[in-house]
Amino acid sequence: MSEVKSASVVKHTGPVAPDAIMELGLGFWGSKALLSAVELGLFGVLSDVGPLDAEQLRERLGLHPRSARDFFDALVALGMLERNAGLYSNTPATERFLDPAKPSYMGGMLEMANARLYPFWGSLTEGLQTGKPQSEAKSGGDFFASVYADPDRLAQFAGAMTGLSAHAGRAIAAKFPWRDHASVIDIGCAEGAVPVAIAQVHEHLTGGGFDLPAIEPLFDAHVAGAGLADRLQFAPGDFFADPLPRADVLIMGHILHDWDLDEKRLLLEKAYAALPDGGRLIVYDAIIDDDRRVNAFGLLMSLNMLIEGPVGFDYTGADCRAWMADAGFRDSYVEHLAGPDSMVVGIK
Amino acid sequence: MSEVKSASVVKHTGPVAPDAIMELGLGFWGSKALLSAVELGLFGVLSDVGPLDAEQLRERLGLHPRSARDFFDALVALGMLERNAGLYSNTPATERFLDPAKPSYMGGMLEMANARLYPFWGSLTEGLQTGKPQSEAKSGGDFFASVYADPDRLAQFAGAMTGLSAHAGRAIAAKFPWRDHASVIDIGCAEGAVPVAIAQVHEHLTGGGFDLPAIEPLFDAHVAGAGLADRLQFAPGDFFADPLPRADVLIMGHILHDWDLDEKRLLLEKAYAALPDGGRLIVYDAIIDDDRRVNAFGLLMSLNMLIEGPVGFDYTGADCRAWMADAGFRDSYVEHLAGPDSMVVGIK
Repeated sequence: MSEVKSASVVKHTGPVAPDAIMELGLGFWGSKALLSAVELGLFGVLSDVGPLDAEQLRERLGLHPRSARDFFDALVALGMLERNAGLYSNTPATERFLDPAKPSYMGGMLEMANARLYPFWGSLTEGLQTGKPQSEAKSGGDFFASVYADPDRLAQFAGAMTGLSAHAGRAIAAKFPWRDHASVIDIGCAEGAVPVAIAQVHEHLTGGGFDLPAIEPLFDAHVAGAGLADRLQFAPGDFFADPLPRADVLIMGHILHDWDLDEKRLLLEKAYAALPDGGRLIVYDAIIDDDRRVNAFGLLMSLNMLIEGPVGFDYTGADCRAWMADAGFRDSYVEHLAGPDSMVVGIK
Repeated sequence: MSEVKSASVVKHTGPVAPDAIMELGLGFWGSKALLSAVELGLFGVLSDVGPLDAEQLRERLGLHPRSARDFFDALVALGMLERNAGLYSNTPATERFLDPAKPSYMGGMLEMANARLYPFWGSLTEGLQTGKPQSEAKSGGDFFASVYADPDRLAQFAGAMTGLSAHAGRAIAAKFPWRDHASVIDIGCAEGAVPVAIAQVHEHLTGGGFDLPAIEPLFDAHVAGAGLADRLQFAPGDFFADPLPRADVLIMGHILHDWDLDEKRLLLEKAYAALPDGGRLIVYDAIIDDDRRVNAFGLLMSLNMLIEGPVGFDYTGADCRAWMADAGFRDSYVEHLAGPDSMVVGIK
């Protein structure tokens, strides 16, 4: 009798284990630990000063002694720091992507996640029940309008978009057949991280970025910093109110998912109208796999569009290709870029 | 020239990639999606009614049409639901551990995480800077005092502890040499999930649980529900104010980490005093590995003690063994239980 029950206990600790459930459900702990580390400037300090022991690092960051070492060692266990002989240092990845002094910095998205998205996602249940955003928009604000009206917030948002887009930009530079095309304009370009990433690798290309006028100084500074001001220019405009600028290749990255279906279709039609015959439209987002069961990040990004605004949603490659066909594109294909991002290329 | 730059782009998307950073930093999205699913009772509905399509499940849960399907498919991609021919159902693990109607339910911890810990962790940075808790205790409240004074909150908290402890309890039942001992009392037993898990497998054992008097009805109901009221009794008391009850084996699970070092040592000394010669003390927690670089959950649990209260912290197996030796235990060992939990066994 006792042995039979033991066997059932073994089953409980066997393949049907609760570990994955508890790890996911309490996964916000590790996530928030990294966001706080970004907020505190931890990775920049270690990049500036080199390896530090726990007490030195604690003092630099202004932390209380109680939990500093647990915090640092948690970041070691999460793979975000290294520790050798008691000295903490960045990993190769956090050194490259989380030091704010480097052009490869991607922490802007995490700064925004820490300041805005983490608390807003706390109301996910209400968002799911009401279909209404849980961001600034919840109290009637228009996120884009309020961000574009405030230079500091606009700079933070544009930096976040650079963090989200730069890696995809490098992959687009590597994977798209740029030799066949002479010009490229990124629609909704923010700081211009994507055209910069492409133009750095493909020296024959000219073009630039199109965004609301308030973006211009941020774009100009970023492009000048990359030494590309002679080849990349800013074109001010509103992609709903104005025609899109003309180029051999247009790019829309993390743009379509902000809008409802009619607006998505309108933007694709406007891109088609602006392209020459043989031109290409590159749409990239955290494109959801057609069967909607693999790309968790893309599906969660769609929930993030619920949190952020009134109508946005993410979509599959098949969705986007069907909309492109309806807009007149003669062919299209989907290609994976990096991490959760893929591009859908429409051919006019 | 262009080829050299291409090679450097390939490096960017190679081993030093930002994917792990972005996945962790935005990991709270998936975590909160699961917590909202638990809050909405999704897993209980699917267990009750069987497989449902997206529209049926949406109606059952009272969700708005906008994002329901993205929510369900995100849970599929996260491994928390299955979807076959358009019908959603629980996975074997969510069926067993997240259906509130089953005794194997572990969602209590996630209910508490959703209602309390997610928002409190939003102030982690302040906690790290001040060393002060960010829970109810932040506004001067005493968490344990306020919880134990409110029957509804006490029941939720005890349920959360059952969710956190039941799996460890089954592992302790399987891994500790119970045949050599006749009685066991769990100190700070809450509903008694751990003595129930042990007594179900080892029919020769008697004993029970020790906790504050307000816990008694919750313990009695849980033990009676398991058909063990004849072998497991409740002993009311305060483990600081009163002597500990006597048994061959005492257990302290998720207890020591709530307290400061002197209090931890006092509890170990009181356990030593209550045990017979040859008796055993089983301490279990998300014990941190001695080198403090593997058990991320244990290190984050220690940060959770910062969030929750004024003095608590988690510890390594070596820490606990040293304190046990100081308290008089003649020997001790560490053994892994399940998931992030290990036990430290002290031998008198």
